[in-house]
Amino acid sequence: MSQAHDYVKSNFEQFKGQLFDLLRIPSISTSAEHAGEVQRAAEWLAADLERIGMHSVEIIPTGRHPIIYAEWMGAGEGAKTILIYGHYDVQPALKSDGWANEPFDPVERDGFIYARGASDDKGQVFAHIKAVEALLANGGKSPVNIKFVIEGEEEIGSTHLGDFVANNKAKLAADVCVISDSGMPTPEQPSIVYALRGLTTLEIEVFGPATDLHSGTYGGSVHNPVQALAEIIAQLHNPDGSIAVPNFYDDVLPLSDEERTELQKTGMTEAVWRQTTGAPKPWGEPGFATHERTGARPTLEINGMAGGYYEPGFKTVLPAKAWAKISCRLVANQDPEVIGGLVRDYIMNISPATVRTEVTVVRGAPAAFVDIRTPEMKAAISAYEQGWGKKPVFMREGGSIPVVSDFQKELSAPVILMGLGLNDDGAHSPNEHFMVEMFRKGINTAIYFYEAIGAGE
Amino acid sequence: MSQAHDYVKSNFEQFKGQLFDLLRIPSISTSAEHAGEVQRAAEWLAADLERIGMHSVEIIPTGRHPIIYAEWMGAGEGAKTILIYGHYDVQPALKSDGWANEPFDPVERDGFIYARGASDDKGQVFAHIKAVEALLANGGKSPVNIKFVIEGEEEIGSTHLGDFVANNKAKLAADVCVISDSGMPTPEQPSIVYALRGLTTLEIEVFGPATDLHSGTYGGSVHNPVQALAEIIAQLHNPDGSIAVPNFYDDVLPLSDEERTELQKTGMTEAVWRQTTGAPKPWGEPGFATHERTGARPTLEINGMAGGYYEPGFKTVLPAKAWAKISCRLVANQDPEVIGGLVRDYIMNISPATVRTEVTVVRGAPAAFVDIRTPEMKAAISAYEQGWGKKPVFMREGGSIPVVSDFQKELSAPVILMGLGLNDDGAHSPNEHFMVEMFRKGINTAIYFYEAIGAGE
Repeated sequence: MSQAHDYVKSNFEQFKGQLFDLLRIPSISTSAEHAGEVQRAAEWLAADLERIGMHSVEIIPTGRHPIIYAEWMGAGEGAKTILIYGHYDVQPALKSDGWANEPFDPVERDGFIYARGASDDKGQVFAHIKAVEALLANGGKSPVNIKFVIEGEEEIGSTHLGDFVANNKAKLAADVCVISDSGMPTPEQPSIVYALRGLTTLEIEVFGPATDLHSGTYGGSVHNPVQALAEIIAQLHNPDGSIAVPNFYDDVLPLSDEERTELQKTGMTEAVWRQTTGAPKPWGEPGFATHERTGARPTLEINGMAGGYYEPGFKTVLPAKAWAKISCRLVANQDPEVIGGLVRDYIMNISPATVRTEVTVVRGAPAAFVDIRTPEMKAAISAYEQGWGKKPVFMREGGSIPVVSDFQKELSAPVILMGLGLNDDGAHSPNEHFMVEMFRKGINTAIYFYEAIGAGE
Repeated sequence: MSQAHDYVKSNFEQFKGQLFDLLRIPSISTSAEHAGEVQRAAEWLAADLERIGMHSVEIIPTGRHPIIYAEWMGAGEGAKTILIYGHYDVQPALKSDGWANEPFDPVERDGFIYARGASDDKGQVFAHIKAVEALLANGGKSPVNIKFVIEGEEEIGSTHLGDFVANNKAKLAADVCVISDSGMPTPEQPSIVYALRGLTTLEIEVFGPATDLHSGTYGGSVHNPVQALAEIIAQLHNPDGSIAVPNFYDDVLPLSDEERTELQKTGMTEAVWRQTTGAPKPWGEPGFATHERTGARPTLEINGMAGGYYEPGFKTVLPAKAWAKISCRLVANQDPEVIGGLVRDYIMNISPATVRTEVTVVRGAPAAFVDIRTPEMKAAISAYEQGWGKKPVFMREGGSIPVVSDFQKELSAPVILMGLGLNDDGAHSPNEHFMVEMFRKGINTAIYFYEAIGAGE
């Protein structure tokens, strides 16, 4: 065991306490009223990066939430450079959503840390910061140069990160980019994500009468916008579960038989699906297994819908407006803008003349693939083997990390998706958690990875 | 002009000030946190009834919000007795719903009083209280005995009023019941409502996964409950606008040609419909005109629906639950319990096995009719003629007042629906208002009505 791993062992309780401090900051990027907290999380992280010995630590303003940059170039010009990406913003969370504890008052229970952002992504990015701390501690050196880019807008579509990367190619130049913002199916079997789905999100607004009306006086003579929106939403899928938007699947690269066989090895079984979702029965596109539906096929999901009076009690109102939020997960070779346009056009096309409908395509990111035959991937495999004592398997991930394609395109550097979370960590859900053992193994595996890259493996 | 009408003239500004005080109390019956305010409104009204000389004023507790009772029997045993019904509870209202002023801070603007409850029903019931005050003032007498029943649960289905009426038949015994809780199409042409629709309300809950899930990780494999609910709601109407629930129309008493001709005279024209609703295009059951759809045919309306993340911003969540609130307006001879059961059974029948659906039939009231050939109706016609200088027309009203059938059944007394509001007062909507002139004419017309009943007209 190296000096750095010894340092992790001696300081792990302290690392955990620091992570708790970071988790106490409700850095909810989507909420305007939390903007100050997002800024506070950036300042907290920047201070920690300074403290562990990173140089040129910057909090770079954007149009909304800042990007943190830091570097340590002490390995020298001849050494490799690793760019580590993560995000310090989190999804919204309220105790009343079904949390056992206050989501921003972290609790350790049965080997897990419960808090919003524990796994997505504060815990995962913090594992890298602690790995670097362990290498630099007591006058130590890292075998590779290190750059951190930690953003505050991942949960709202990384709005400003793409431009930042494109405008700072020299500053961010690296031999490999590592992103720890994903999960593995079980804590025993390490896995490396090699494919991420893309994302297109849309907002639909349906307007009926000019103002809320009394449903007794006007009901039956006005096309209720909640009903009209329900009718639109009901037409987005075919009865068999496939997506009804014309041409939606046109550009989908078919799964090869070989890939389907490979995916089956790591796939979610129906038993695991039942246990993790608690839903009554599987559902989805015919002809594909659950693990294909969730990882390898595109989807169209209603993230939210509302209209009229939906609080406890009753209000016999005929509402003026209804709205819904939709997101499509995309696979290769679907273009997010093309898909956004197809969905928008279809909705406008099926929207009846008795209401007025507006559709806004909010944002998009293409699906991303990682080449699994690079030397950098070999270093990652070796790092996981040392960290877990077991060879990692490769898998697809259903979620989306828009920056992957930015890094690939702008920096021409290979990307390693070094997931340190678990799939059932409850990212975006109540009672999100991060396994303490994953945090520990994550720090150690990151050190092994930097060492393997430094050794030119 | 009688002494009572003189009193109204001299005291009208004071009456208006008192109404403003009553409107300042946010007596929202559906909201548990406003229970104290509902009680405060009851106490305010009871104090005013005492002050004007009513006897036996009681605030009678129920399972939720109290009923106010008061009587003045000074006309003697030989005189007729009028039972006046109204309600002091109101619909919810927030300035952010689109109000120009705070909904519980009344404002007079261009001849209208703007406040929640101004028309529905505080202003209308208060017109009767002021009419009685004018008759009893300065040692005066009313030509009829007067009883008031003013409830605090009309906006939540008059939950306890039916039992109260059934259990207090002797106390409430009257020769005629008058209810002022409806509107007329224009302030120039007085009208009397002779038919009200019934009501059945239902709540639907659709449950999918056990908890909110990450839409990237599980989307496409779980039947999204928002989508499933939209699919259910989309099947409640046929594409032509008629209701798709089997047997829904079975018991509907067809409109006679004569009635259709009569209704046409007072009917809402398409031009008025466009102006008052602001909706793009008429919609509804084929074969019926707008004024028939809104007043003479049954409807099924979605009053509200929600699920997932519907606040500003985005949360890529696959929600655990979605819910909707539905109300059906009923006509003769539809039974509210039968219709509630038909809608519930149909929803359960079309609900897919991939989600779990629960339907609760919340409450019901049958449609109500008023005989327009009684002596009491003649007195009402005469009162409107004196108050307005114009003969009233008869019309149907789309809304529901559950107590009408209770009074008819339990007290065997004719009911007069003496609407003092206007159809476009915005009851249940933002910027609800009551025309100052309607308040003045309402008080005077109520006095003429009591006098006409007293004179045995």
